[in-house]
Amino acid sequence: MNDDLFESSDSVRSAHELKYAQRVTFDEPLRLECGSELPEVTVVYETYGQLNDRRDNAVFVCHAISGDSHVARHDESDDPGWWDIAVGPGKVIDTDRYFVICANSLGGCRGTTGPDSINPKTGRPYDMDFPKISIGDIVEVQQRLVDYLGISRLLAVIGGSLGGLMTLDWTARFPDRMAGAVVIAASARLTSQALAFDIVARNAITNDPRFYGGQYYDKEQGPVVGLAIARMLGHITYLSRESMVRKFDADRYTGRNIDTPFETAFSVGSYLAHQGDKFVERFDANSYLSLSWAMDTFNLGNTQRELVDRLRGTMCRWLFLSFTSDWLFPPFQSQELVEATLRCDKRLSYCNVQSDCGHDAFLLENELDSYGGMIRAFLQNVEKDVLIEYEEAETTVVEDNESSQETPPDAPRGHFLVEGRRIDYDEIVKLIPLRTKVLDLGCGTGELMQRLKNRRLRRVMGIELDETSVLESLRKGLDVVQADLNAGLKAFEDKQFDFVVLSKTLQTVLDVDLILAEMLRVGIRGIVSFPNLGYHRYRKMLAEQGLAPQLDDTSTRKWHNTEDVRFLTIDDFRDYCTEKGYRIHQTVALDTEQGVSVTYAPNLNANVAIVVISTK
Amino acid sequence: MNDDLFESSDSVRSAHELKYAQRVTFDEPLRLECGSELPEVTVVYETYGQLNDRRDNAVFVCHAISGDSHVARHDESDDPGWWDIAVGPGKVIDTDRYFVICANSLGGCRGTTGPDSINPKTGRPYDMDFPKISIGDIVEVQQRLVDYLGISRLLAVIGGSLGGLMTLDWTARFPDRMAGAVVIAASARLTSQALAFDIVARNAITNDPRFYGGQYYDKEQGPVVGLAIARMLGHITYLSRESMVRKFDADRYTGRNIDTPFETAFSVGSYLAHQGDKFVERFDANSYLSLSWAMDTFNLGNTQRELVDRLRGTMCRWLFLSFTSDWLFPPFQSQELVEATLRCDKRLSYCNVQSDCGHDAFLLENELDSYGGMIRAFLQNVEKDVLIEYEEAETTVVEDNESSQETPPDAPRGHFLVEGRRIDYDEIVKLIPLRTKVLDLGCGTGELMQRLKNRRLRRVMGIELDETSVLESLRKGLDVVQADLNAGLKAFEDKQFDFVVLSKTLQTVLDVDLILAEMLRVGIRGIVSFPNLGYHRYRKMLAEQGLAPQLDDTSTRKWHNTEDVRFLTIDDFRDYCTEKGYRIHQTVALDTEQGVSVTYAPNLNANVAIVVISTK
Repeated sequence: MNDDLFESSDSVRSAHELKYAQRVTFDEPLRLECGSELPEVTVVYETYGQLNDRRDNAVFVCHAISGDSHVARHDESDDPGWWDIAVGPGKVIDTDRYFVICANSLGGCRGTTGPDSINPKTGRPYDMDFPKISIGDIVEVQQRLVDYLGISRLLAVIGGSLGGLMTLDWTARFPDRMAGAVVIAASARLTSQALAFDIVARNAITNDPRFYGGQYYDKEQGPVVGLAIARMLGHITYLSRESMVRKFDADRYTGRNIDTPFETAFSVGSYLAHQGDKFVERFDANSYLSLSWAMDTFNLGNTQRELVDRLRGTMCRWLFLSFTSDWLFPPFQSQELVEATLRCDKRLSYCNVQSDCGHDAFLLENELDSYGGMIRAFLQNVEKDVLIEYEEAETTVVEDNESSQETPPDAPRGHFLVEGRRIDYDEIVKLIPLRTKVLDLGCGTGELMQRLKNRRLRRVMGIELDETSVLESLRKGLDVVQADLNAGLKAFEDKQFDFVVLSKTLQTVLDVDLILAEMLRVGIRGIVSFPNLGYHRYRKMLAEQGLAPQLDDTSTRKWHNTEDVRFLTIDDFRDYCTEKGYRIHQTVALDTEQGVSVTYAPNLNANVAIVVISTK
Repeated sequence: MNDDLFESSDSVRSAHELKYAQRVTFDEPLRLECGSELPEVTVVYETYGQLNDRRDNAVFVCHAISGDSHVARHDESDDPGWWDIAVGPGKVIDTDRYFVICANSLGGCRGTTGPDSINPKTGRPYDMDFPKISIGDIVEVQQRLVDYLGISRLLAVIGGSLGGLMTLDWTARFPDRMAGAVVIAASARLTSQALAFDIVARNAITNDPRFYGGQYYDKEQGPVVGLAIARMLGHITYLSRESMVRKFDADRYTGRNIDTPFETAFSVGSYLAHQGDKFVERFDANSYLSLSWAMDTFNLGNTQRELVDRLRGTMCRWLFLSFTSDWLFPPFQSQELVEATLRCDKRLSYCNVQSDCGHDAFLLENELDSYGGMIRAFLQNVEKDVLIEYEEAETTVVEDNESSQETPPDAPRGHFLVEGRRIDYDEIVKLIPLRTKVLDLGCGTGELMQRLKNRRLRRVMGIELDETSVLESLRKGLDVVQADLNAGLKAFEDKQFDFVVLSKTLQTVLDVDLILAEMLRVGIRGIVSFPNLGYHRYRKMLAEQGLAPQLDDTSTRKWHNTEDVRFLTIDDFRDYCTEKGYRIHQTVALDTEQGVSVTYAPNLNANVAIVVISTK
């Protein structure tokens, strides 16, 4: 078979050898959530890289439904791993730096105890006697392994899809056992749509006449049609509509001549037939039932409130990632997790990565620069947190660790005088006292946040829409959540921050009323900076020249292509605050063209205003 | 069974009696697209209402994959029809007004010739000998029926989903046989994703051991598992993610105790099991294979160019409808059809109806007011076209038919003087010569278009984003396409119109460069009207009061909540045209506050400008 058509994210095409796999059996019975008990549990796992002396560089990777312990090649001659693109020396999850652990899950069919394992009580495979397991049961076994490896706290747990559910469960079940968690393309529970596909898949398996009620291990053939149908359905849900167009539309009517009982008339049919047939060779139908059931019954909370209750006790720093075209675990579900985590006031970052590759995007190279860069930066940030903790424990008195090593960014003192910029950042920094909590709305690449971080604040986080800016902020060690301000700040609790900053962003926001109301709900004080339409040069331009004033920083932007959509004077803003019942505590007026602050007639003489407001 | 859970758009739950159905057999052999031939064809059909004397009030309704001839009840005691919400006395497709015909499709299993019919050559059912049919073959049979009923031209053909594909085929195959066509939730060809679901469904049927290669009619049981799996998949794709949440999430873990071989643990599972089981009782697996194959091989064109070639010869007026949450026949596919039809310069309207009900939305009451209102208005518009044609044929000399019956809308002469409005419409109407083709961008409820229509123009059509405005325009007898101007006008050919009007819309558009470039590509002349920021009152407001000018018509709108996002003076626009190389042919400057036109210093004295431009 040598046809591009058949390539998929499922690089594990056949039952490869696990020559680097290790095996450990825990004799203590495992009590399961369903009430049953397994008398013993065997775990097959693989490790990569070296555990350091402080035993604090271990990263646990959780696999998706059809994966196994073989996350990556161990050497050139090794079989491909399912996440080779991300795990390896110098890669995103850098095995030169981290000790990476990946284990076949409980219920799986690649060595860890599952339906095809021998039940020590009967000497025969468990098959239908294998109890119904939960994600929690899977994680309990993973935790036994981590104990066994002598690791008291993981640097991070990371997983996508089913592995993302495991990661979520880890954080809630063993909150003190990891410094960071990376949850990719996952959710608090499946949508009814995703659940429905799993149900149809299970119906196809269990109603296949060769299923024999699950006792097919001694038969000539198991439920190969049902399992293949299940896999075909899976593959449709892993791809996006767009990626299917790209993959199949050019030769839609060109079937491939492959040996299969399934329809091959269309290119997409040949692909599905191939994927179905291959899967049957390497996977066990009972395992598929077991793991898909665990996935379907996972529920971190039916409501936002329940979700918040489950996440409140977690102690890790978070990175959530979703993909715009993922319809199996759609972005809004990651956003629900993000909102609940924000409500618990945890440190987190989030990005909905622009991709047309669907759910499988995290297994593909297409957007690796973006989401991979974020995972890399996040792991380094967590590593730094752990180092600081270690140093704090060693020295007891700590100086502001980062101010020494991280110099302020590329903004020399004189810069703002030349181009009339940055002076507003200086003023905003001055307005914020030490030991406060600050939220920066529309934080861009994190320049203001970085300045604030170098001061002693309790918490700084940002909201930004642009994906590359989110990545930049993460690289600066910051926490940033990708979101559209026009949708409000519903994730945040009332008065969760001392200051909420809206710096040179008000004029680009369509729903001014909403964003100001929200910033004053979420923050005790709001700091708003905006260009002042009342500036004398702008007034003259309209009054004398009869032309629309150009307020945009970038002088190439005129009325027809500026990003600004709202135009106001300082007095307009004052009137607005009066009308809304907002109190103005302080107004800093600047003439950034002259590089001076303005006290006389600011509505005429300042081109930028910084206003501190509150609800009363 | 009395549980809301089991309600679905599939109101035809069991094999109902077709007591009002009629039957006709055509003895002439039917040559099929695949090359085979059927020696004779029987058609089962139902009719509603009365054919009028001119035989020009017949509406042919095409059904979807699991439908049949029973589109609606014939009386109170009759079984429910599959589209009772839309067809009946006084309803959207008003049987007091129209003669409605609906026939079971070729390949179906409700009386019309299909796989379960007796092959006259063998005296046994066709089963696997039934040839592969196409949508075209289905339509050929429908056309025979229409001939048989003595109807030379239908008022309209209408259909959704598979019925939408039939409607498309009708228009291309028999272009002179219908005055109108309503194409709902359809496409020129399936997406690879939709195709993939059909393929998995067919694999489930043909790999069911009880399929017996299709020869199961004399067996105790046919491929009931495979057909049920196919139906479950279908039901998932007919619903949207949102509607599944609404239907299943509240009692997600509450299965129903129903007698079924399928999984019932989750509410959605019980629903799918029920739908699968019920379908098997009323539908034939071979018919499902036959009709889904016809659907999958339908292709009105692989490229936009091929599509345009297929549609160029059509002669009907069009209404296309899609639903925002339909992911089986997603809106972009209807938009491809709309764009191709626009390129052919046909008369058409289109709306992407806001709905969270998915593909099945057209079978549900939820948005009936909206899409139903559009279908009703469209049929009345087509009826009027047909009447005008008839009268033209009778009288040879025709006066402007509509000016007499349609008086100008609610805008008495003095109105614009009072509130400073409408005067710009008067001026625009004056600028447009008779017998020209006009496109109105952002046409609203069609007020300007209606004024233009009352003049002798060759063609007037509008683009509008707001759904209720689209409905209003349709009700005025106008053609309007729902689209976002910010996305450009790529559907239109170069210089397709004489005039393109952008009336008081420029200031609300973000991408000014794009929309002006597009209007001058599509039109020989562009007419742009906009509020003039240079008006003396606005200048004074900024210069003297230091407040942002309020240009918005509605005086409650200020800087923070105006819909305007672009602010320009007449001189700004002049400079812009110079920069872009656009030629200004004429500028009409108005002071609508005074109700006068302005000739002296328009940039200072006019609050509204109307400018006629072209590319050179």
